[in-house]
Amino acid sequence: MEQLHTSLAVEKAAQSKIDQVDFSKLVFGKNFTDHMFICEYKDGKWQQPRVVPYQPITLDPSAKVFHYGQAVFEGMKAYKDANDDIFLFRPEENFNRINKSSERLAMPAFPKDYFFEGLTTLLKLDKEWIKKGNGNSLYIRPFVIATESGVMASPSMEYTFMIICSPVQSYYGGEVKVKIADYYSRAANGGFGAAKAAGNYAGQFYPTKLANEEGYQQIIWTDDATHEYLEEAGTMNIFFRINDTLLTCPTSDRILDGVTRKSVIAMAQHMGIDVEVRPIKVSELVEAANNGSLKEMFGSGTAAVISPISGFANKDQFWELPKQESPMAQQIKQAIVSLQYNETEDPFGWRVKVD
Amino acid sequence: MEQLHTSLAVEKAAQSKIDQVDFSKLVFGKNFTDHMFICEYKDGKWQQPRVVPYQPITLDPSAKVFHYGQAVFEGMKAYKDANDDIFLFRPEENFNRINKSSERLAMPAFPKDYFFEGLTTLLKLDKEWIKKGNGNSLYIRPFVIATESGVMASPSMEYTFMIICSPVQSYYGGEVKVKIADYYSRAANGGFGAAKAAGNYAGQFYPTKLANEEGYQQIIWTDDATHEYLEEAGTMNIFFRINDTLLTCPTSDRILDGVTRKSVIAMAQHMGIDVEVRPIKVSELVEAANNGSLKEMFGSGTAAVISPISGFANKDQFWELPKQESPMAQQIKQAIVSLQYNETEDPFGWRVKVD
Ligand SMILES: Cc1ncc(COP(=O)(O)O)c(C=O)c1O
Ligand SMILES: Cc1ncc(COP(=O)(O)O)c(C=O)c1O
Repeated sequence: MEQLHTSLAVEKAAQSKIDQVDFSKLVFGKNFTDHMFICEYKDGKWQQPRVVPYQPITLDPSAKVFHYGQAVFEGMKAYKDANDDIFLFRPEENFNRINKSSERLAMPAFPKDYFFEGLTTLLKLDKEWIKKGNGNSLYIRPFVIATESGVMASPSMEYTFMIICSPVQSYYGGEVKVKIADYYSRAANGGFGAAKAAGNYAGQFYPTKLANEEGYQQIIWTDDATHEYLEEAGTMNIFFRINDTLLTCPTSDRILDGVTRKSVIAMAQHMGIDVEVRPIKVSELVEAANNGSLKEMFGSGTAAVISPISGFANKDQFWELPKQESPMAQQIKQAIVSLQYNETEDPFGWRVKVD
Repeated sequence: MEQLHTSLAVEKAAQSKIDQVDFSKLVFGKNFTDHMFICEYKDGKWQQPRVVPYQPITLDPSAKVFHYGQAVFEGMKAYKDANDDIFLFRPEENFNRINKSSERLAMPAFPKDYFFEGLTTLLKLDKEWIKKGNGNSLYIRPFVIATESGVMASPSMEYTFMIICSPVQSYYGGEVKVKIADYYSRAANGGFGAAKAAGNYAGQFYPTKLANEEGYQQIIWTDDATHEYLEEAGTMNIFFRINDTLLTCPTSDRILDGVTRKSVIAMAQHMGIDVEVRPIKVSELVEAANNGSLKEMFGSGTAAVISPISGFANKDQFWELPKQESPMAQQIKQAIVSLQYNETEDPFGWRVKVD
C-alpha cells in the first residue's frame, strides 16, 4: 500500500478526568484515558492521523459496521516500572495481527508508522493513567470499524482506525471452572476464527450465558465438526499440564494466534519445561483427569496473562483439578509478568520501552 | 419480558429530502427516507419508542457493537399498488426472526407492538418514497446494536433498535455466475449462521472478493466440515431445478431460514411443481450438470426475490447452464411479485396492507 506520510496532529484535552477515577476499584475496560488516536480511511487512503480528547463518534445509522460486522481489534498493555519508565510487550505482534485480521475481513491494512507514532504519543500524553505495581497496567484497544453509509452487503470503502486506552487491574477474579463445548461452536473451518474480528465474540455470549447458569465461568471451545478436539477459550488460548509436560494445541484458521500463548511456550521452554504443541482430544483430557496425570489447566491472554482453571465439565461430568504446591501456571506467569514490568532481564527482546 | 406500553413519539422532519433523489438511478441501500424509528434499551427495558428525522447517531468509541459484533438486522420490503395502497410481505416472519437472531446473540427481544406501530407510522410518514411499478419498492432495514460503553467481552446491557428505509429498484443486474466454496466457509456447526447477525457477513467479503477476481459474482457456501453439501449464498438461499423437480436444502443452525425461500417452496407447490427439501451434495449437482438434467439454479432473497444463476464453478471446472424457454425461476418470481404488488389473489395470507 502506498501511503504518503502525514505527521500526527495533536489536540490536547482542556482538562484531565483522572481525578474522577478510583484506581483501586477499576472495572475492566470501563474507564478511558483523556485522549484517543483516530485516523480515517477514505478515497483509497488513510487520512491525517490525530490524537484528540477522548470523545464520542458520530455515524450514519446505515454505517456498515452496524450491519455487516466489519470490525477488528487488538488488545495490548503498557506497564510502568519503578522508575516510571513505560514499556510495551511485543507490540509488533499486535500490529501485525490487526492487519492480518483486517485482511481476512477485506479491510485495508494500517500503516506501521501511523500505528506506532499514534500509540507512543497517546501513551506519553496519558502517562499518569499508567499506575505502577502489582497487576496495574494500561489496557490498549486499537480497533478498526467500517464507516461507509449504505446497507449494500459489500466491503466498506471507508473506515476509522482508533486507539483507546483503559487503566486496569487484573481481569479475572476467583476460581475459573470451564465447560467443554459439545454443541455450540466458536468458529468454522475456513471461517475467520483466527481473526480478532468483532463477529467472533457476539456468537459466544449466548452459549457462555448458558454455561454461566450451570456454574461455569468460561467455555473451552472444540472443533465444530466433531467436538473432539480442544481449541481455545472465549478470550484466551488454553494450556494443559499432564505430568510435567505442558500441552497446547496448534493454531489454525479457527483459533486466535495469541501473543501470550507464544510467550508462554517460549518462556516455558526457556525455563526448561517440556512443551508439546499438538492436537489434544477431549478424551485424552478426560483420561488424564481420571488417572491423575492432569495436574493443571490454564488460559493465556493479554488481559489476565495466565488464568488458572480449577476444574472442567465434559458432558455431565465434572473434574476438580488437584491443588499444586507450586503451580507451573504461577511460575510461568511470574516470569512473564516480571519481564513485562522490567524487573528481570529480557533474553527474548519482547519488552519495548516507550520514549 | 414485561413491558409497559409507551405510546410512540413522533417528530417530523422540517423538510423532505425527496427532491434530491433521482428514483430512476437508485443505488441499492444508499438513499434513506426522511424519518427513522428508534428505541433504546436500558435498565432492563425498552424505553420510549420514537419516530424522528433521519439523522446520525453518536456512540462512545468503546460501544460494544464496535468491538464484539453484537448486532442483528432484518431486510423486508414495502410495495405500492396501482391505487397507492401500501403492502408488506409476511412482516411477522421478519419480526419473529429478528428476535430469534437477538436471542442467539444474547440480546433482548423487541416488543411486537413497538415494532409494528413504529414500522407503520414510518411507512405512512414516508409514503411518497414508495414508488409504484416494476421492481420499485422500499427496502426496510430494522436492526439492533449493542451500545453500552466498555470493552469487557460480555453481553451489552444497553441496545438501540432502529428501522431505516431506503427506496430501491432491483438488487442484482446482469448474469450471476457462482463459485462453490471448497476452502472458505460462512458458518460453523453450532455457530450462529442461522441468525441474521452482522458477524456472518464481514467474514464473507474476503472470499467473495477472491471469487469476484476469478469472475464469479457470488459464492455458494457448503458445510464447513466436508464442503460436500450445498447450503446457501451470501445473502440468498439457493434452489436447483433437476429435470422438473425443484430442490433446496433444509435449513440448519448454519443456514438462514429465508422468508423468500419459504415462499418459493409454497408458491411452487401451489403451482403444481414438485419440490424436494433435502440435503444436496455438490457431487449430485455436478452429475446433474454433466448428464443434462440440471436445468436451472437460482438464489432467493428479499432484495432480488429470485436471482437466476447462469453457471457455476466447482474446483477448476465451470458449467454453463442451458437457457430455458420459460424458466421456472421466472414463473415463480412472477407469481410472488404479482402477489406482493397486489396484482393477484393471495391464497396464503402473505400480503399485509398498511393502514
Ligand atoms: C479468542 C481469543 N483467543 C485468545 C486470546 C489471547 O490472545 P493474546 O494472548 O494475544 O491476548 C484472545 C485475546 O485476548 C482472544 O480474543
Ligand atoms: C445469509 C442469507 N441467506 C438468505 C437470505 C434470504 O432471506 P430472505 O428471503 O428472508 O430475505 C438472506 C437475507 O436476505 C441472507 O442474509
